[in-house]
Amino acid sequence: MSDSTIVYRPIGVIHSEHVMAEKTPIQSAYAKGCKGWVELFPEFAEGLLDVKGFSHIYLIYHFHQAGPGKLKVKPFLQDIDRGVFATRSPHRPNPIGLSVVELIGCEGNVLHLDCVDILDGTPLLDIKPYTAKFDRIDATRNGWQDDIDDETARQRGRRNYTGGDAL
Amino acid sequence: MSDSTIVYRPIGVIHSEHVMAEKTPIQSAYAKGCKGWVELFPEFAEGLLDVKGFSHIYLIYHFHQAGPGKLKVKPFLQDIDRGVFATRSPHRPNPIGLSVVELIGCEGNVLHLDCVDILDGTPLLDIKPYTAKFDRIDATRNGWQDDIDDETARQRGRRNYTGGDAL
Repeated sequence: MSDSTIVYRPIGVIHSEHVMAEKTPIQSAYAKGCKGWVELFPEFAEGLLDVKGFSHIYLIYHFHQAGPGKLKVKPFLQDIDRGVFATRSPHRPNPIGLSVVELIGCEGNVLHLDCVDILDGTPLLDIKPYTAKFDRIDATRNGWQDDIDDETARQRGRRNYTGGDAL
Repeated sequence: MSDSTIVYRPIGVIHSEHVMAEKTPIQSAYAKGCKGWVELFPEFAEGLLDVKGFSHIYLIYHFHQAGPGKLKVKPFLQDIDRGVFATRSPHRPNPIGLSVVELIGCEGNVLHLDCVDILDGTPLLDIKPYTAKFDRIDATRNGWQDDIDDETARQRGRRNYTGGDAL
């Protein structure tokens, strides 16, 4: 049990076409064609130097519309209760979101993105480069997700999103 | 500019063999053989259900020993100033850390890990499953990191860590 608290401040805002949580794709892998952009607050713009060299970046953000944290949730891809730490559900003890998005371009304090599975207006906490050398891992076991066939995952994962490119 | 603040509470503590920041490997990719464990606070243990089905998990944590946030940093792998958001430096505006570690086992509220590149005593904020389907991305450009040869990266990345298995 810990009484300590950790305080962060948003460094910018994520903008996207997704205005309803229940229609937002659940993973960037299901969001090809979903364009969006990061508006970094101008005082942090200098930190974007060299970012445009990367084809993909991590966005770490605050699920600002998440409900109370739960320990068991039904994931979007399946109708069975799972431990929240075995899912990407937003209803977590600390509602922190993580997405790998495609970086299309960088102008000043704005990053243009594809594969955005994030709700419009989401507060951004951090940006990190995605590097094949560190981050592309041969996972040998994918837990309950190995039980879901690809077509079901695609249909549920995309959640009625019909704009952009076909997957 | 945002005056809003976001408050999180640690859900547990990460334990490792790394007691000095300057000798901790900089990436889990350079930390094979570095064992460690997560001690989740007991009230969150139920959220670990189904986690053991995954061979790899993300840990999201607070860089509790990071200095003040900077916008330009010299990354561990190179002696050139880079924008902080193009690096994994701990000295970030919000000092949030992200590692993919190998999950060896789960007993009650404890996760046993390998490939731990995290300082002993680090406060844990979140755990997410790593899934090949979502997270294993063919990045086409890896920015300044493409300029570094693998042997230099390995030597600098491991930072004098000599225990565990040879890489």
